[in-house]
Amino acid sequence: MTAVELIRRKRDGGELSTEAIRSFIRGVADGSLPDYQASAMLMAITWRGLTPRELGDWTEAMLRSGEVLDLHDLPGVKPGLVVDKHSTGGVGDKVSLCLAPLVAACGVRVPMIAGRGLGHTGGTIDKLEAIPGFRTDLSRARFKEVLAEVGCCVIGQTDWIAPADRRLYALRDVTGTVESIPLIAASIMSKKLAEGLSGLVLDVKVGGGAFMKDRDAALELARTLVGIGGRTGLPTRAVLTAMDQPLGRAVGNALEVLEAWEVLCGAGPDDVRELTLVLGAEMLALAGMGTAAEAQVELVDALRDGRARRKFLEMVRAQGGDASAIPDGLPRTGATEEVCAAADGFIVGIDAELVGEAAVALGAGRRAVADRVDPAVGIVLDRKVGAPVRRGDRLCAIHVQDGSNPLEAKAKVSAAFHLGPTPIAALPLVLGRV
Amino acid sequence: MTAVELIRRKRDGGELSTEAIRSFIRGVADGSLPDYQASAMLMAITWRGLTPRELGDWTEAMLRSGEVLDLHDLPGVKPGLVVDKHSTGGVGDKVSLCLAPLVAACGVRVPMIAGRGLGHTGGTIDKLEAIPGFRTDLSRARFKEVLAEVGCCVIGQTDWIAPADRRLYALRDVTGTVESIPLIAASIMSKKLAEGLSGLVLDVKVGGGAFMKDRDAALELARTLVGIGGRTGLPTRAVLTAMDQPLGRAVGNALEVLEAWEVLCGAGPDDVRELTLVLGAEMLALAGMGTAAEAQVELVDALRDGRARRKFLEMVRAQGGDASAIPDGLPRTGATEEVCAAADGFIVGIDAELVGEAAVALGAGRRAVADRVDPAVGIVLDRKVGAPVRRGDRLCAIHVQDGSNPLEAKAKVSAAFHLGPTPIAALPLVLGRV
Repeated sequence: MTAVELIRRKRDGGELSTEAIRSFIRGVADGSLPDYQASAMLMAITWRGLTPRELGDWTEAMLRSGEVLDLHDLPGVKPGLVVDKHSTGGVGDKVSLCLAPLVAACGVRVPMIAGRGLGHTGGTIDKLEAIPGFRTDLSRARFKEVLAEVGCCVIGQTDWIAPADRRLYALRDVTGTVESIPLIAASIMSKKLAEGLSGLVLDVKVGGGAFMKDRDAALELARTLVGIGGRTGLPTRAVLTAMDQPLGRAVGNALEVLEAWEVLCGAGPDDVRELTLVLGAEMLALAGMGTAAEAQVELVDALRDGRARRKFLEMVRAQGGDASAIPDGLPRTGATEEVCAAADGFIVGIDAELVGEAAVALGAGRRAVADRVDPAVGIVLDRKVGAPVRRGDRLCAIHVQDGSNPLEAKAKVSAAFHLGPTPIAALPLVLGRV
Repeated sequence: MTAVELIRRKRDGGELSTEAIRSFIRGVADGSLPDYQASAMLMAITWRGLTPRELGDWTEAMLRSGEVLDLHDLPGVKPGLVVDKHSTGGVGDKVSLCLAPLVAACGVRVPMIAGRGLGHTGGTIDKLEAIPGFRTDLSRARFKEVLAEVGCCVIGQTDWIAPADRRLYALRDVTGTVESIPLIAASIMSKKLAEGLSGLVLDVKVGGGAFMKDRDAALELARTLVGIGGRTGLPTRAVLTAMDQPLGRAVGNALEVLEAWEVLCGAGPDDVRELTLVLGAEMLALAGMGTAAEAQVELVDALRDGRARRKFLEMVRAQGGDASAIPDGLPRTGATEEVCAAADGFIVGIDAELVGEAAVALGAGRRAVADRVDPAVGIVLDRKVGAPVRRGDRLCAIHVQDGSNPLEAKAKVSAAFHLGPTPIAALPLVLGRV
């Protein structure tokens, strides 16, 4: 069948054969399929969806457009002990920074390939690069070395991983086909499958600051992701977590490294710590290290006895970073501005998306792929949902470069805080599991 | 709104504003909109459709991407007396060749911009170009001159007509979005509106040899077309006609000119003659020249008294053609092959699509846009649906160039004829009106 015949079949609600999907994705990867046919197919899939069988085939075809990390020959890596976490993206989510060393400290390898920030959500790679000297562009050989020696390593997207996904992802962004759940799921899973994992934990965010605004859509995505894991032989668990207000207090690259460090030292904000433990426990459980409850005990120990933070510093050094810069030598701005409460009351909501946009306005994130980020700028929230405030109380500090006037960021942050006359309980962090 | 926002709105079933549609089509026409965004929008429209208001705007925006023929300054052309016919395409449909001079002979101007054949249906332009010297690439000024002097003129698609449609049409062909009724309708109407008409008659073909295989789809297309006419101020009527078996007996360019000539001389196959009169009567009625029944009388007179055929020769001469070549100097092949009945019985069906494909295999039509056509080759059916046959009777003659072996065409034509033990009545030609 020709490409146009495949598009027509999907348009009419038909099913594509395994071979048809492979040939289509081959065309995406080798460039022989024109953009206009790829985008017509993407819209037809947004319309008609993909059956579980098609979705498994689509994901595997994208995976096979690149290479899979082979960890069999790696010294010290036991089969079944290579696990990663992926989050669908939120504001202030620095959990990967805590989780990779924490889980590695418990004896599980974490080969994490992470993204940069785009739009209102930050990216793990940008955060780690706030550490002076930290390199996220390691070669595949060096990635494996660090993984063997340290137990965890975090690098950015690379050429050898699912090149077909990279082309489709760029196209989806400009053709209104980003929101398709099967396409989202295939994109995530094809990249994670390339890490050669024995287990995967997904943090599917739900709420105003997340890609999935409501629980039903998030649940569908979670089920789709776990379904692909089942079809492709990768044990996968998903946790639905709240992303209505930012996670933790810090939003901004170096500020978030600092907060992650606090968590690794056994302190830090409750929600970041809780999410780290919840996801970490799932990762250990997937690796066969007991139940999630047993695993939590092990994780708390690793935070308490210093193993987790030492593992973090080990990873920083192995990736070229200056470990002595943590925590006091991280980039910081010369000035801070304040946003204060305009009335007495209670914080009943903090719009995570607006806070994320405020951070982008400061330069902490990107509006376009080619933008540079400023590692030092950001926002630190003083209070979260449920807290009482009095008129004039500081709600947050905005870390800005000297001489800059963060008008846009201030306006967005001010608008993000919702005050009310009666206290409100924040949502529980964990909203569901698949 | 950006292009991707417009795509997303249509994807989600929303309505596009007039300004949004204009800006989108402007981007199509000036090339600033990339193919991949145009094709994503085309698929979203195939999915969600267009409201009548959107469809009117879309058609007008495409029309305005080019120019409109201005016939106001044309000597001898009265307002209200400029009418054209458009057919959705069939096999053996040479009615335009009869209709343009016949209607012009009755005092109505017919500024016909026609297409070339592609796939299994032939094109009016290819047929006329079978006449030695006949030019269909006239300048706009010459087109108007011929229209003023002769009363009818037939030219091919030109650059100044709806360039946005040309780009979208090419894209639809390769992105599985050809079948969308609103997109088909907008494409047809934007081109016809450019002719500066006061009325338009549409021949919407239904059946195995037509684009619309069933009556419901054809009816929907007819209603959509007439609806656009209403919104854009062009009085439009549609006739649904049968296209199960080929129209007339001849399929192939010069062979069809010859058959059209027979009709213009008052003879020719019944179905071609009937369809010419039906459509011609609608055209005259739209021009205000009485009822359709009264108009039929006028048309029959023009066929009988020679006015129609003289008008045809006038048009041929005005467009550079050798009128003395009609009928005996038309290109013809040196050889014919026969396809004969394999059994006694009755013809219960002639698959028009297969006959069309057989003609393409002979070289009478195009598989790709760049193919050249052979004016002389083609097929002449001896019998049509309902006729009795005896084993060995000739079913059709295949006109081939000397030395060629029309294996594929013969196989297709043989397969096209369906014989049965009992006679069957052919469908009535006119299946409905809108």
